[in-house]
Amino acid sequence: MADRDIEQLRTELAAELGAEIVRWDDATLAGRAHDTWPLSLVRAHHGTLRSRPACVVTPESVDQVQAALVYANRHDVKVAPFGAGSGVCGGFLPDDETMVIDMGRMNQLLEVNEKALYARVQAGMMGDVFEAALNERGYTMGHFPQSIDLSTVGGWVSTRAAGQFSSRYGSIEDMLLGLEVVLVDGERIAIKPSPRRSAGPDLRHLFLGAEGTLGVITEVIVRIMPLPETRRLCSFAFADFDTGLEAIRQIVRAGWRPPVLRLYDEHESGRHFGQWVEGDACFLLILCEGVAPLANTEVEACREICLSLQGTETGEAPVEHWMGERNNVPNLADLVARGFVVDTIEVTADWSNITELYSAVIAAVASVESLLVVSGHSSHSYAQGTNIYFTFVAQPDDPGDAEKVYLECWKRAMDATVRCNGSISHHHGVGRLRVPWMRQEHGQGIEVLRAVKRALDPKGILNPGALLPE
Amino acid sequence: MADRDIEQLRTELAAELGAEIVRWDDATLAGRAHDTWPLSLVRAHHGTLRSRPACVVTPESVDQVQAALVYANRHDVKVAPFGAGSGVCGGFLPDDETMVIDMGRMNQLLEVNEKALYARVQAGMMGDVFEAALNERGYTMGHFPQSIDLSTVGGWVSTRAAGQFSSRYGSIEDMLLGLEVVLVDGERIAIKPSPRRSAGPDLRHLFLGAEGTLGVITEVIVRIMPLPETRRLCSFAFADFDTGLEAIRQIVRAGWRPPVLRLYDEHESGRHFGQWVEGDACFLLILCEGVAPLANTEVEACREICLSLQGTETGEAPVEHWMGERNNVPNLADLVARGFVVDTIEVTADWSNITELYSAVIAAVASVESLLVVSGHSSHSYAQGTNIYFTFVAQPDDPGDAEKVYLECWKRAMDATVRCNGSISHHHGVGRLRVPWMRQEHGQGIEVLRAVKRALDPKGILNPGALLPE
Repeated sequence: MADRDIEQLRTELAAELGAEIVRWDDATLAGRAHDTWPLSLVRAHHGTLRSRPACVVTPESVDQVQAALVYANRHDVKVAPFGAGSGVCGGFLPDDETMVIDMGRMNQLLEVNEKALYARVQAGMMGDVFEAALNERGYTMGHFPQSIDLSTVGGWVSTRAAGQFSSRYGSIEDMLLGLEVVLVDGERIAIKPSPRRSAGPDLRHLFLGAEGTLGVITEVIVRIMPLPETRRLCSFAFADFDTGLEAIRQIVRAGWRPPVLRLYDEHESGRHFGQWVEGDACFLLILCEGVAPLANTEVEACREICLSLQGTETGEAPVEHWMGERNNVPNLADLVARGFVVDTIEVTADWSNITELYSAVIAAVASVESLLVVSGHSSHSYAQGTNIYFTFVAQPDDPGDAEKVYLECWKRAMDATVRCNGSISHHHGVGRLRVPWMRQEHGQGIEVLRAVKRALDPKGILNPGALLPE
Repeated sequence: MADRDIEQLRTELAAELGAEIVRWDDATLAGRAHDTWPLSLVRAHHGTLRSRPACVVTPESVDQVQAALVYANRHDVKVAPFGAGSGVCGGFLPDDETMVIDMGRMNQLLEVNEKALYARVQAGMMGDVFEAALNERGYTMGHFPQSIDLSTVGGWVSTRAAGQFSSRYGSIEDMLLGLEVVLVDGERIAIKPSPRRSAGPDLRHLFLGAEGTLGVITEVIVRIMPLPETRRLCSFAFADFDTGLEAIRQIVRAGWRPPVLRLYDEHESGRHFGQWVEGDACFLLILCEGVAPLANTEVEACREICLSLQGTETGEAPVEHWMGERNNVPNLADLVARGFVVDTIEVTADWSNITELYSAVIAAVASVESLLVVSGHSSHSYAQGTNIYFTFVAQPDDPGDAEKVYLECWKRAMDATVRCNGSISHHHGVGRLRVPWMRQEHGQGIEVLRAVKRALDPKGILNPGALLPE
């Protein structure tokens, strides 16, 4: 697109939607140039991330989203939807010819149905604001991603988010009852909530995890529930990671679903819970909640299983400590500026493969030159398996090698995951980072995804570069 | 398609796949002419259902499914996949030019993973045979549709089935971990099981409920779980249907999930449980199961809620009675032959709308001339709402009016459901019967379904007439 065309795009859109809605001043464009992908931060620090979007549209209504998309589709303009920019895989990385649709002004809570237990909310509402509004009324969504105060409700849907309490309450796909989405041609689709239906394929799942490649989500209807009346905490130290995993497996196999079942390997146990554990012990946090008889029965059953596996009980304090710290993360830009290469990698596998996967990814990442530490914990469990959330830190001698080292850590972790029959992402999504492994994840299924993409976005203007391999 | 072309189809296919695999003798064609849709039975009785498929292919391998589809796609031959024919909405109704792919010979249990709790099974395995094979090993799928001994595992996926224990264990979409499906061009897609993934839209949901319009499912991977160690039963009689619904709502709202929560209206309570209830009471059956502390705690909590709503406790016997009778259904063909018009209609709505929906559908169907009885029960509950499973019987003076009366009952029930913000199907699917209401169910979403259909089946040869309006 020539500079002249970009100017035309800006002025025509501003004329159509209003100058307040369409901005292209430096500060606006700089603030909407990338998400929280560590590689974007590395590139920004080294001056190799130069692109900025052509303009930023901040619609206040679905009509304006429709108008923006109709314009874009007519004029072959690329579009990147923006929630709050907390994505860590480069799902949002608009180039100079891209129109950003920033959903931040569509942030209203529209309806709370206390009898049918759902809430209807505009896609741009911030997660923590939404949860607080529910809490005020005596409800919760039960969805607590670490990014809750940095992400939007619509973003959760687009990226297939999972929260810290997912082992009981499920992930966003278990919570999403309905949604409104605008397709690339401006068509507005409303998927009505229903307790359950058997009326053809469930369209919600086309947009859960589409990462802005199939439409722009404007409204979301999610499940809510009464605030739990009781909360019970306990924690255990196990001889090793495998024994801790076995405790989780036995708990979920028996049908228990504590919202929190977090097991840290020996590195992270020492790092986060050093005051409660000694040596190489691995630390398991358990939180049960709900109506009192359920929470009380569940915590006792979990305790029995942990004790039967020679777990040492370490009380409530470690769980309280985690509850207080759980959303604190180091300032990534600061670490990047100091020459560190840092990221987290969440993958998943079934109980037959998870032990091998854990060891394989740790060994694979540890073999990268300049690596300082790699560790992991299990934080989302299922009857079939669990996730591992790895953290790595490297410090290349030459700061200019940061990108190379970063990509090498990821490549080794992803390859090891695929080799061990794991899934390449548990809840951070694909973005641009994981695209090279999408074919291995989906096999020929990737062609079905492509066919759906071509059907819903024939010109390929919606967030090109994300999700699907070329 | 000319007769000559049908002959050519038969002989070419037989030459390619083998004479044992491709049949067109009278008995075979007559046995694969329709499913258990009551209207097909009515038409068959009155001699107005005359069409039979062109041929029946019974593949023994995925390769043969692929070959059959490649042939069909190349020669524009319509294809109707067949499981076991228990569908009740006319999802299977091949015309004279259609190739039936009968999955009955692909019926093997391929793998049981006791650690990761899943089973891999060929799509044509019968439900009861599969469940029995799991039981022998100490496991269950937890999926008990009334049709379990009349339906296949692949059919459950294609129709978005739900079983009698769904209030705890979920419906087929909660159980399906992975699947293999052959697309219309012969491409074989394997969706790998994963405890959870965030790697783009979840492709399983394209085929769950597609009713054979997007591909042919050849293999299924489903969740299993250990057989429950304890089962607890109780039952209550309530003053009226609304109070019984309120008991269910309070139970699920508190977070309890008894596998069985079945509430019968006064008509059905009298009909099925007359020996335990008097007058107009409405009868609620509760079954809790799992590890002992969970089942025991849950049944006590349910009892407390029911007693607080003035339910009269009626013991375990009614639940045992239901367990014994639950899969017995009257011989439909026999009723049709005797001039009765009979069917069931399952719909769903949230707790804000369900009472109104129940009354509206009962009144709407009751107003049909020649109607003898219409009644309902709630059998699948969720935090957001529940289903109602209606049963109606009519007896037109002129037996030739059976089709008209049948369609009129359905039209009034569907229109009332839509008017009350309900969903048109809880678990029987769409078939040909519910097609006229698909646009009201999905709004503009129907265009998304159409776009997906065109993308995956450009010639529209896969089960045309089912699911989507013209």
